Amino acid sequence: MSARRAQISPWAPFEDRRRARDEKKHAVLRMAARLFLDVGYHRATLNDVATRLNITKPALYNYFRSKEDILEECYRLGQQMVDEAIAAIDAEGGDGLTRLRKLIRAYAQLMTIDFGMCLVRLDDRELSEEAYRRVRAEKRQDDLAFRRYIEAGAADGSIVACDAKLAAFAIAGSLNWIGHWYRADGAYSADQIADHFANLLTTGLEAKSARARSPSGKNAQKTSTEPGNRSRKISP
Amino acid sequence: MSARRAQISPWAPFEDRRRARDEKKHAVLRMAARLFLDVGYHRATLNDVATRLNITKPALYNYFRSKEDILEECYRLGQQMVDEAIAAIDAEGGDGLTRLRKLIRAYAQLMTIDFGMCLVRLDDRELSEEAYRRVRAEKRQDDLAFRRYIEAGAADGSIVACDAKLAAFAIAGSLNWIGHWYRADGAYSADQIADHFANLLTTGLEAKSARARSPSGKNAQKTSTEPGNRSRKISP
Repeated sequence: MSARRAQISPWAPFEDRRRARDEKKHAVLRMAARLFLDVGYHRATLNDVATRLNITKPALYNYFRSKEDILEECYRLGQQMVDEAIAAIDAEGGDGLTRLRKLIRAYAQLMTIDFGMCLVRLDDRELSEEAYRRVRAEKRQDDLAFRRYIEAGAADGSIVACDAKLAAFAIAGSLNWIGHWYRADGAYSADQIADHFANLLTTGLEAKSARARSPSGKNAQKTSTEPGNRSRKISP
Repeated sequence: MSARRAQISPWAPFEDRRRARDEKKHAVLRMAARLFLDVGYHRATLNDVATRLNITKPALYNYFRSKEDILEECYRLGQQMVDEAIAAIDAEGGDGLTRLRKLIRAYAQLMTIDFGMCLVRLDDRELSEEAYRRVRAEKRQDDLAFRRYIEAGAADGSIVACDAKLAAFAIAGSLNWIGHWYRADGAYSADQIADHFANLLTTGLEAKSARARSPSGKNAQKTSTEPGNRSRKISP
């Protein structure tokens, strides 16, 4: 019995160790993101992050080179979620209005989670020059996705003719602001906000013909938590 | 002749000196606000501000106690402009939709000038505890003004029934975002943005009866620079 035990390595299999390491790295990121949002990037120290995770500050350097490195990774994770949402919507297809509403819903929900909030509440000028340029380019791509769906909608008749650039800025601004005011213990759930904004921000853009195709609802501004709800009449 | 000259004080009259001092203080604020926006509050130094104004850093202390003091004053000036806009709109009266559009126009224009941008682009957690609380309370008042006009519109029939709180957040978010993307040398003038957003952000809220009262235009999303333009039909 004791002979068999001696043959078992005190180290976990390599795969398990790698997974454990990835999980720990992610836990550092989550804690750092929360702290950056809570007290601001400048006031947050790696000591605070370590203390909250019951580890020492040197232990953090197993995972990241610096606070700036962590910040960059927070942006990367948030941006990855936006990219995935856009890729999924593009893959599903549909008219411009449908895709625009899906993006509004997905983006609104991202704004209620920490890595999404990091994209809009932290100052990207704290990043290295290289990371800053990459982050800015990615943000432009997000803006362009909104614009692309609006232009597609204007072309396929689901959205009225409009200045797509300004309309995209107006929508993105409303959504980014969620990252500033949303509270997990607040009056609205992420789903409610997503549904509400998908209605509110597209009611004025919807072409008459698209409205006629939708089953008419009692009131467009009432929140619906029904996923497929398409009732967006402007007034009762 | 020389006797008369001797009676003239080499100092300017007190009133002129006070005015000159106020002008200089304001010049410091304008330069500091621009620098905070250009390079970020943390990277901006009082030395940079002084150098750009052709004065020494100690000379700045004639006007402000600290960088934080300057930051607080930037917020104060921006907030004062918002307060004055709301007071003027309240004094003029009109239905909820009319007042909402006026506030959107005024706020959009504020977002294109430095002190307005400071309100939304600088981190208010850099302020002293007391100033932070005051700034937050004032921002809540701004949000409440949007909400108040939407509620008034719902009551007087110019705006559809809606969740006024979320609608106000959506509008304020769109407007605050202008402070992030606006460039003085960009494609849109402050007036064009203000007109466009006043249309874009209220088309979905406008009650059918209010639309019926408006002279109908070709397309609501087209920018109008005509101040009194009320044509906001949704589709051609």
